[in-house]
Amino acid sequence: MFAFFRAYFYPEVHGVEDIAGGIFAPAGFKAGTAECGIKATGRPDLVLIVSDEPSVCAGMFTSNRIKGAPVLVSRENVKDGIARAIIANSGNANVCNGEEGLSSAISMTNDVARLVGCEPTDVLVASTGVIGRTFPIEKVENGIPRAVDSLSPVYRDTIARAIMTTDTKPKETSVEVDIGGTPVRIGAIAKGSGMICPTLATMFCFITTDAVIEQSPLKSALRQAVDRSFNRITVDGDMSTSDTVLVLASGQAGNGTIRKRTKSFDIFTDALTEVSLRMAKAIVQDGEGATRLITITVSGATGIDDARKVGLAVANSPLVKTAFFGGDPNWGRIICAAGYSGVAVEESRISIDVNGVRLFDAGKVMDVDETEMRRKLEPRDISVDIDLGMGEARATVYTSDMSYEYIKINAEYTT
Amino acid sequence: MFAFFRAYFYPEVHGVEDIAGGIFAPAGFKAGTAECGIKATGRPDLVLIVSDEPSVCAGMFTSNRIKGAPVLVSRENVKDGIARAIIANSGNANVCNGEEGLSSAISMTNDVARLVGCEPTDVLVASTGVIGRTFPIEKVENGIPRAVDSLSPVYRDTIARAIMTTDTKPKETSVEVDIGGTPVRIGAIAKGSGMICPTLATMFCFITTDAVIEQSPLKSALRQAVDRSFNRITVDGDMSTSDTVLVLASGQAGNGTIRKRTKSFDIFTDALTEVSLRMAKAIVQDGEGATRLITITVSGATGIDDARKVGLAVANSPLVKTAFFGGDPNWGRIICAAGYSGVAVEESRISIDVNGVRLFDAGKVMDVDETEMRRKLEPRDISVDIDLGMGEARATVYTSDMSYEYIKINAEYTT
Repeated sequence: MFAFFRAYFYPEVHGVEDIAGGIFAPAGFKAGTAECGIKATGRPDLVLIVSDEPSVCAGMFTSNRIKGAPVLVSRENVKDGIARAIIANSGNANVCNGEEGLSSAISMTNDVARLVGCEPTDVLVASTGVIGRTFPIEKVENGIPRAVDSLSPVYRDTIARAIMTTDTKPKETSVEVDIGGTPVRIGAIAKGSGMICPTLATMFCFITTDAVIEQSPLKSALRQAVDRSFNRITVDGDMSTSDTVLVLASGQAGNGTIRKRTKSFDIFTDALTEVSLRMAKAIVQDGEGATRLITITVSGATGIDDARKVGLAVANSPLVKTAFFGGDPNWGRIICAAGYSGVAVEESRISIDVNGVRLFDAGKVMDVDETEMRRKLEPRDISVDIDLGMGEARATVYTSDMSYEYIKINAEYTT
Repeated sequence: MFAFFRAYFYPEVHGVEDIAGGIFAPAGFKAGTAECGIKATGRPDLVLIVSDEPSVCAGMFTSNRIKGAPVLVSRENVKDGIARAIIANSGNANVCNGEEGLSSAISMTNDVARLVGCEPTDVLVASTGVIGRTFPIEKVENGIPRAVDSLSPVYRDTIARAIMTTDTKPKETSVEVDIGGTPVRIGAIAKGSGMICPTLATMFCFITTDAVIEQSPLKSALRQAVDRSFNRITVDGDMSTSDTVLVLASGQAGNGTIRKRTKSFDIFTDALTEVSLRMAKAIVQDGEGATRLITITVSGATGIDDARKVGLAVANSPLVKTAFFGGDPNWGRIICAAGYSGVAVEESRISIDVNGVRLFDAGKVMDVDETEMRRKLEPRDISVDIDLGMGEARATVYTSDMSYEYIKINAEYTT
């Protein structure tokens, strides 16, 4: 059942131990689902995560200027750093619905608050799915009591499944770290598989932890984790109007309070980053028609921002992505994307390695055996290492290739 | 033979008359080609355009940080505003070849200068084609005398064909305008069809005119024309390392010298823009696997830059492009791209029309009959009108849809 967890276990993060349980692994949380009938398949389309006591919370949201109503509501509700619940539906997004959309999102928080016994402002909300239809608030309101009834602390994979839209696989993970002698757990569920349609393939990640931590360090840790994970992935360069990452900290682990600029904070942040990175990579690997995970590491930059800019320009180039689908180590397309990234790169300083083979060396094209190279590109994982030869900074970004399937899914989908 | 010219005749530009002849239409020019054997097909792969007397010249080049050697040489050689010839080869680009590449580009200008009888600095040079192979300078040097021998003022379509790489059609046009009672002609050939590979599908446009005009107004006119045409098209967002637009003005028309801030200057600039726009649209329509030309007009912006940013974000979105390939009027993807364009748009002010049908009205989703809408999207030409509802500025950009063929061509092509 947890076989896929092992696939995401990266032993290089020191002290982070892989455990089972997803968002149920940390102490102090229950979750439930309901079938509201929004999804035509009749599958679960509503998720409720509740902490036994008020949790410390933090959230990060889409930077798209157009934001879904739930993003506006949740952004307000995380501000005081306290939350009890996350309510999320799939099948129908809540974007471009004007004031009605806003009142639907607020109504969802009201219903959960009444049934769970907390303030509406302690409920965080998220919606994903098709847009352009009126938001089916009656269906959701009918489903919420059933989701509350199904609340349980026992692991089941329906929780991760209920937020899926075009995802082909549920995405969840959980880890344990030692913080000052006390085991602390972090679990997450996520959804996302390329931006098929604004909000349809929105990225969600809901994280639970039993760490004892206050709002300010939790916000800092989440910002760092997101910056090193979700902000480093790109499937097609489009950015959803509903992207949401939320974390609830129940404090049930009983560790000494995590404060900024301490070793505990670093350990916690690394573990949160690891969890986020696993979810981010799972989203890329489940990208629309993706056949390969491409890890692009840009080194030798004069700053991290420059390294990331070059990485994202390469990762977002349809030409680079189609080349890797075709198994073609097209360094020309890579160097071209680096050239238009906006970073002051210099041809004579750039070196490019693909799956460990140097193709371009400080401005010189290398003589590489094509058959040998194509064989090297058969595995599903592709690493592209670009050394700009200018400085010491480096950054890694992740993307998928672009296949016929990508066109098919996106051309045939109707709003 | 000139049937396709009519397809690009846009009667809305006042006083611009469609004529035959391409780059041969203006007085004072000869052109020739040669088969150097760079193209495996044995087709012409070298073009030489020569003016009978020194011409006034101007050029615009790729803004990619990585520039091909011919771009570096031509950029220097246009600086004094005088040129006699353009030499361009297809089949093999001259990028990432270090000092050898530079000496090859200079050697091409030397050979032409010697045979034509001018200074090497009066020869402009361009190369396009595959990269990663050593530039075949011997083949080019053997071809140059044959291209000189074939120089003639008589129209033939081999000139436009000899700069083609992945282009499926030759691209040329010519117009006549009245400048102070004197007919002035402008002709152009162009190549480009999506950035398959840096420089392989580089965009070239070589323009001839018999206008009497000095360097400074010619530069201004070209900058305006390029800004309204080639800078408004995008096939896949990638930017070649060799993009080049050159104009030679022979002065043979005998019109009164065109000076800035005069009616003559405006007429000339409009005609140059019209010629450039025809070539730009022809490139988009010949885009990799393109089945539709999408014209995106953004109005109601607070500035032209904002309008263009929104237009390019929409035009470059793989989701928008695949949706139109599928005949799906996906306003959600359009509004989403507007949201991440970097421009401060507001959902409640945006309206979107596709082929004249309002889909989204000041923040409200319109109820549109889907079957009727799909029928409206059957034609090859799609117009997308986005009103941001913020100001008075507008801009138009052009792109193609993204099809299975795009993936096929790009996945199967090898550097």
